[in-house]
This record gives sequence, structure tokens and C-alpha cells, in this order.
Amino acid sequence: MEERSPDQASENSRRIADLVTAYKILLNEDVLDSFGHVSVRSATDPGRFFMPYALPPSLVAAEDVIEYATADSQPIEPRGRKVNGERYIHGEIYKARPDVQAVIHSHSPAVIPFSVAGVALRPVVAQAGFLPFETPNFEIREARSNERGMQITTLARGTALAKVLGNAPVALMRGHGNVVVGSSVKQATVFAAYTDINARMQAASLALNNRIVFMNEPELFGASEFDINRPWEHFRQKILDAGSRAKIDRGQFGLEQTQKRQ
Amino acid sequence: MEERSPDQASENSRRIADLVTAYKILLNEDVLDSFGHVSVRSATDPGRFFMPYALPPSLVAAEDVIEYATADSQPIEPRGRKVNGERYIHGEIYKARPDVQAVIHSHSPAVIPFSVAGVALRPVVAQAGFLPFETPNFEIREARSNERGMQITTLARGTALAKVLGNAPVALMRGHGNVVVGSSVKQATVFAAYTDINARMQAASLALNNRIVFMNEPELFGASEFDINRPWEHFRQKILDAGSRAKIDRGQFGLEQTQKRQ
Amino acid sequence: MEERSPDQASENSRRIADLVTAYKILLNEDVLDSFGHVSVRSATDPGRFFMPYALPPSLVAAEDVIEYATADSQPIEPRGRKVNGERYIHGEIYKARPDVQAVIHSHSPAVIPFSVAGVALRPVVAQAGFLPFETPNFEIREARSNERGMQITTLARGTALAKVLGNAPVALMRGHGNVVVGSSVKQATVFAAYTDINARMQAASLALNNRIVFMNEPELFGASEFDINRPWEHFRQKILDAGSRAKIDRGQFGLEQTQKRQ
Amino acid sequence: MEERSPDQASENSRRIADLVTAYKILLNEDVLDSFGHVSVRSATDPGRFFMPYALPPSLVAAEDVIEYATADSQPIEPRGRKVNGERYIHGEIYKARPDVQAVIHSHSPAVIPFSVAGVALRPVVAQAGFLPFETPNFEIREARSNERGMQITTLARGTALAKVLGNAPVALMRGHGNVVVGSSVKQATVFAAYTDINARMQAASLALNNRIVFMNEPELFGASEFDINRPWEHFRQKILDAGSRAKIDRGQFGLEQTQKRQ
Repeated sequence: MEERSPDQASENSRRIADLVTAYKILLNEDVLDSFGHVSVRSATDPGRFFMPYALPPSLVAAEDVIEYATADSQPIEPRGRKVNGERYIHGEIYKARPDVQAVIHSHSPAVIPFSVAGVALRPVVAQAGFLPFETPNFEIREARSNERGMQITTLARGTALAKVLGNAPVALMRGHGNVVVGSSVKQATVFAAYTDINARMQAASLALNNRIVFMNEPELFGASEFDINRPWEHFRQKILDAGSRAKIDRGQFGLEQTQKRQ
Repeated sequence: MEERSPDQASENSRRIADLVTAYKILLNEDVLDSFGHVSVRSATDPGRFFMPYALPPSLVAAEDVIEYATADSQPIEPRGRKVNGERYIHGEIYKARPDVQAVIHSHSPAVIPFSVAGVALRPVVAQAGFLPFETPNFEIREARSNERGMQITTLARGTALAKVLGNAPVALMRGHGNVVVGSSVKQATVFAAYTDINARMQAASLALNNRIVFMNEPELFGASEFDINRPWEHFRQKILDAGSRAKIDRGQFGLEQTQKRQ
Repeated sequence: MEERSPDQASENSRRIADLVTAYKILLNEDVLDSFGHVSVRSATDPGRFFMPYALPPSLVAAEDVIEYATADSQPIEPRGRKVNGERYIHGEIYKARPDVQAVIHSHSPAVIPFSVAGVALRPVVAQAGFLPFETPNFEIREARSNERGMQITTLARGTALAKVLGNAPVALMRGHGNVVVGSSVKQATVFAAYTDINARMQAASLALNNRIVFMNEPELFGASEFDINRPWEHFRQKILDAGSRAKIDRGQFGLEQTQKRQ
Repeated sequence: MEERSPDQASENSRRIADLVTAYKILLNEDVLDSFGHVSVRSATDPGRFFMPYALPPSLVAAEDVIEYATADSQPIEPRGRKVNGERYIHGEIYKARPDVQAVIHSHSPAVIPFSVAGVALRPVVAQAGFLPFETPNFEIREARSNERGMQITTLARGTALAKVLGNAPVALMRGHGNVVVGSSVKQATVFAAYTDINARMQAASLALNNRIVFMNEPELFGASEFDINRPWEHFRQKILDAGSRAKIDRGQFGLEQTQKRQ
């Protein structure tokens, strides 16, 4: 790796620590499931980002993080660990959006229905005023020709997704999930949680009445205007309250990874 | 502070202890989230009320409580702690309603859909007979002119909300949440929980049939007729059953607050 | 009390032990809430039944059980404890139904919507084949003249409810809850849980399609044909898995009761 | 039993260990309830399979497993334990489907509504691409003549169910539940969990809009293409996180079984 001052190195440690906390929070808030991944841009090199290798979210710890190049989403030092097949989501967004420091891809169950129902996700609740009037929805069928599958497993698919995201903080992915970006791991985490909350509230409201009151322009706000510390610390306290976590047991999955490392 | 007899002082301690329990109960009953706040009027000076400083509900302890004046919702002794931006909800209601001893503002997810769907929240289940035939719904757009935002961050917005609440125990706030008042912290807490239960039951009933049986006049009751001790002690036992709470960890949020105190 | 053989006395102890377990199970299965009560007929005197005094379900222990006469639903030895205001539900059903050994009154949230929506609860899932083709629904308005309230706080209201129940195992109570009876505490508990499950399944099915397939006559079964041991032991294991219960703390509620005893 | 090499015997031990883990996972994921059962084919004799005796899922341990013949679904050595009444589901599928190594029968609450509403369960979410375009639905009324009941308690009913399943990985059973098969316990477990997830997502999507986007042919995949290790290890970590399980207490249910063994 390139040389870094002690301060910059510890800033990367802090970013990775937040990354691990974000995994725990997003699992506890029912945003992440067996899949899904969170990444953070390097503080020392904007052309690189950090993301765990291909592990289920509940098993992620700081030592599992790999450094990738945003240029091609390839690992800097793979060391035999299985890289994440959908790393192109992250790399292509970091390339297209210099303002973005963190990217979350989840299968949030509250959000998926909007991606397949042709009903736009729109801001309904006060804390979700960072959402655009209409959240973009990525249709993978428009990004593939003769290939199969819905995952973002190629650079081209990642580029197409980043294009649909545009300058928005959130893009839905039809039948698959969504992607949320932020100026920090904390901001992206809080935005992912409130995207989920807004989706649940919008669905419950539409169940009562086909016509509901959406937020209007004076009620929306810029991403930086949301005091994310309060929800972040609340979510963090909830994972503490949930009790001391069992020691991670990688079982046969860990075994498989170890074998692959040889 | 003014002089107080030992009895009056300990009554304030009791009120603050109930306030802290109310936070834990309302989190456990899914009424409070990352935001939301509970206050109680002072037993020694009806022109003052107690409320925690701007903390997420899961972090609230007795020592975090600040005393405010109902006249202007300003803190008596700020001591550098960040006051709650929406304290005007509380102060303006205490001013308008001498009968009210406690105020709860929540983003209860069961209630919000009624606030945006144009469907009135009405009493459906026996224990919610304290609700009016039609719960009032506060529309912030009618209370602001050229300003932005949905929060009750000015005296004028607080006054407008208190006016919509009128003599009711509950008012919805469109796209934002609701406010519940009571003659004690216990009563307001139980009313907030049953407002949430009634909303869930009304929504589930309307999903079965557009026309449902609402409670009629002989089925409603005055606030004081509800034996709140049974649900209060039940909710309290549930937080005990949920296991001994993790030590509160204010993390970087606490850090920020400490810095601000200097 | 009348004289009893050691065997009969221990049968009553067993019934009361099952009663306490039933409270824990029904809380854990989300059938009971802050209110609701379970009773069991005396094994030594069919004209008597056992039920806890007016406590929230989460606080109930064996020593809280009071013996009542089915004739008038009055306690045999009140000993200053606050009797349950709705004991008439139990007494009147025991009088009308010699086959019934246990009665459960709950506010099961899955069932209430059917009571107010004019949609009959009907058997949909295999384990709920003990339900009648159409579960009766008690409308309190037909049982009161000039009085107020929805609770079964008089003998007359209890009689009217028992009449609507007829020979069924379950009756809904509009806007209030339901009552489930069985030939033992275990059977009534399992029937209450499956009434709740059936209600959830029927509501979810109707949300997909207005016309659904209900169970037909060859698919229903008599109450005694349901092997209740499997669900009972499963529910019991779940409360064990939920961890050792916190010591019950009656708090100010216990205090109030103690004062009333003087 | 027939003679086995040490390797084959330990492969059976591994399969039974996975079986017990599958019970815990499927309970935690809300797929299994008081009933439901999981079986695995013998590694040493494809004409036999392993399944616990008639126990509620929460009580299952490795020593409860009985060996059955696929020919007639009868136990090889009953040893007085109560065999599962619906073992014909398993035996008949193993007979009809040599590719199947594990069978799960559940009452998954998310799936049942599709079985009674006449709305086909179809693949909506990326991970459920192993589902056929239209999941078959078994109607017991077409498999019985003058008999009663919905359970698969005869060889003939088992044969009829296996026929409806055909080559699919999943078949619904009207008003009863579903059956999921796989090339291993792990695969069947992950497929059962994602069948449940897909059902929830499809129902939530249809609630938003009657017309939704289903997955098309290039988006589906063969069973073996799904990397089941990630969800399996995630689900397994979740049961570890849920805390150390209480010691199983068979209570009066265990008592009954012991008596039957005499």
C-alpha cells in the first residue's frame, strides 16, 4: 500500500469500524438479510474503497475487509478470499459520484414491492425528506442483452445502475433491492433505515386510501440537513440492548473460505 | 430554583422517574423511534415542565432532564446542553391546557398512515374509548407561510398545533406523527399505546371491509375512567422481562454533547 | 372449603399450574395483552372456578388465583383482593356449558378486525378445523338498554354472551375481543392460539383475493380430535427459550392492591 | 442395520446434524410452527430416510431421529416411539424423485394465503429464481373420496401430492402448507426460507398494484446455481445470536411418549 500519515490511517480504521457497526445496525433494523453489502471510500485514496469479502452480513468483522480499486472494482490484494460478485455496484457509483463516501446495497423487504409494482417510492414521512419526489427504479432488463441473471456482476451493469441513480441518494432495483449512498457510513446507514421506514409508511397509507398527501418542496431537505447522529446512536444503542452477540461461528462456510485461501 | 418543600421535591423526582420509565415502555411498544419525546409538568410550578435534552429516546436517563418555562419553551438553566428543537409542542400545550400534566410526541408508525390518507382515526376497540369520534389532524401547511420544514420549531407552530388539539387527548400531525396528552405520565403513556393499538385495529378492519362498526357514544368514556394501572404495570413488566438493559453508551453522540457543553 | 381427597386437591393444583402456564404462552403468542383472563373449573366442585384477581396477565402467579362460584360469579373468599370486573364471562359460560372446563377471554389483535368488519371468521387452515363454519359474533348493543360500556360487568351481559356462544368453541365480541372455551386449559389455550392463526391467514388470503377456499365439512373435526399436546409443548418450549423471566415486580400496582387489602 | 463403512456412517451423522440445525433455523425464520417436519435421505441406502418421531419442532434433537423405508414410509425399528402421521409426504417424494435428498413440510404463514386465494405463487425476488413460473398447488379434495381430513396420512395421499409436485422444488398444499425439496438439507432449508420471503414480497407488491413485474426466463436459475452457503451460514449465525437455547423440557408431552414406549 501507499504510504499514509498516522492520522489518515486511523481515519480509515474509523471508517472500517463504522462499516462493521453499520452491518449490525442494518441487520437489526431488518434492512440487510443473508446478502447485501456496505462499502466505504478510502480516506487516503479516493480511487479505492473498502468492503468485506463475500460473507453473509451477520459474520462481518473488521479483519474481513478488502480494499478495491474504483477504476475496475478489482481487489488490490485479493489474498485468496472470495471477492463479492456485485462489487461493481460500489465501484461504479464511487467513480460517478465524487461526493459519495459510502454505498449500501440491500434487499430491504419494505422497499422491494415498490420496485415491482410500478408505484413510485415518494417521500411521505418527515425524516425521509432527503428522498427525491420520485425515487428512480433500475430495470436490469434495459441493461442486459443476451445474458442472464439480475445481479450486478459486470462493470457494464454497474455503470447502468450508477446512471439511473444519477444524483439521487437512493435507487430501487426491480425485484432485487436498492442502493443507498451517503457522505459517510453513518449518513448512508440512516438514509437506508429511513428509506425503509418511508416505504412501510407509504404502503400502509396507500392501503387506507389510494390518494395520499406526499411531502412538497418546502418539506424536503438536503442530505446534510438531517441530524443523523440521533438515529445512528439510537440504532447503535438498540444493538447493545439486543445483548452481547454470540461469538461468530463461520461453520462450514468459514471452512470453505479457508480452503479456498490455500 | 424556587424553594420547595421536601414533599413537593420528591413528587418531582417521582414524575421524572415515571418519565424515564415511559421512554422505555414506549420504545418497547414500538411507539417511539429515534426521535420523539416525553415531558411532564412540574409539580411545584405549573409554569414549568421537565423534558430530556436532545437525546435519542433509548439513551434517556433521569440526569438528562432539563426544566423549561411553559411561557416561551426556553430552558431555565441550559448548562450548555442541546435543547430539543421541538420543545414548543410541549410548552404551548401546557399553556393552553391547564389539565394536562404530561405530553408525548411520537412518530408511531401505526398512526402516521391515518395522518396522510385522509381517513379519520376513530375509536374501534374498547380500551380506546378515550378517543374522540374523530381524532383531529394537524396540517403544518396551514401554520406556515414562507418557511420550510415540518417540525414544530417555533412558538407559532406550537400554538397552531395546540389549537388543533383543542380539548382532545390526541392530535395527529400529517406525515410526521402525533401528540398525546394526559393527566399524568402514566395516563399519557397508556393513551399513546392504545392510540397505536386502535390505529392498527382500524387499519386491519378497513382492509377486510370498507364499512366497519365504530364505537358509539355509550361506548366512549372519560379519560379518568380508564384504569391505566393495569396496562402501565403490564408494559413495565414487559421491559423487565426483556432483560437487563445494556449500559447506555453515548458513543460519538455523547462525545459531541460533551464538547458542546464546554 | 369443603373437604377434598388428596388426589382431587392435587388435580386442582395441576389445573392452576396449567392456568399460569397458559398466561405465559398466550402472552408470548400475542393473544393476551394488558387485559384478558383465563379461568379453569374446579375439579372438586363443578359449581366453582379458579381465576386470578384483577392483575395484568404478565404478573399472574399461582398464589393470585381466587375461587369463584359459577352461580353468581362471586368470590368464595374475597380476602380484600380486587376481583375481576368481567368474571361474569366465565361464570355464565360454566353454568351454560357443563362440558367446558376452561375459558379464555382475550383481545387477540388478529381476531378483533373480524368482529367489527362484518366479515365472518371461518376455518381456513387445517389446524383450525375445530371452528364452526361461521364463528358467532357477540354485539353488546343487543345486550344493553340504557347502560354504558362494552365490558361484561353484569350477570345479564354474561348470560347474553353465553347465549351467543351456544355450543361453539369460540365467540367474537364486537370491538372488544373474543372468548374461547375448552375441555381443559391446554385445549382452550391451543384453540385460542389457532383461532388467532386462522384469523391472520384468512385476512391475508382475503387481501389476495375476495373469493377464497374455506374448509368444507369433511375437513372440519371435533374438538377432541385435535392432538393439542404437540402445540402446547411447542408453545411451552418457546417460553422457556425466551429466557428465564425477570422476577415479577408489581410496582405501584402491587402497592395499590396491598393498600386495598387493608 | 446393514453394514456401513465408517465414512458413510459419519456422512449420515452429518446429515442428521444438518437436519437438527434446519429445525432450529426454520423455527427462527418463522417457517415451521408447532407442526411441520424435515427429513433427509440416507447416504448409505437411498431406499431409506431419516426423520424425527412425532415431536413439535422446538423439541427435536439428533437422538429423536427414526429411520424409515421409502417403499412404504414405515419405520425400520419403531422402538415404541410415535411415528409421524404424515411421513407419507416424505416417503412418496423420495420414491418419485431420486434427485431429492431432503424434504420439508411446513405451514409457512406467508405461503398459505396463496394456496387458498387462487393466486399463483410466482418468482418475484432475485433469490427466488429457483421457483417455477407458477408453483403447483395441491388440492386434497381431488385426492380423497369418502374419507375426511386434510393431512397426508395415507400412502395414496402421499402419492397424489408427489404427482402434483412433479419436478418442481416446491408445491403448495391448499389450506394446509407446502412442501419444499432439495439436493441437501441445506438447499431445502434455504429454498423454504426464500419461498416464504418471495410469498411475502409478492403479497406486499400485489397490495400496491394488481399488476406487478414477475421474473422472466433469463432471470430464473437452476437449483444448483444458488449459492446456498451464504444464507445457510447467515441463518445459522442468527440462531447463535438468539442466545443459548434453554434446555429442552419435554414436560407432559415427553411423559406421554415415555409411557407409550412401555
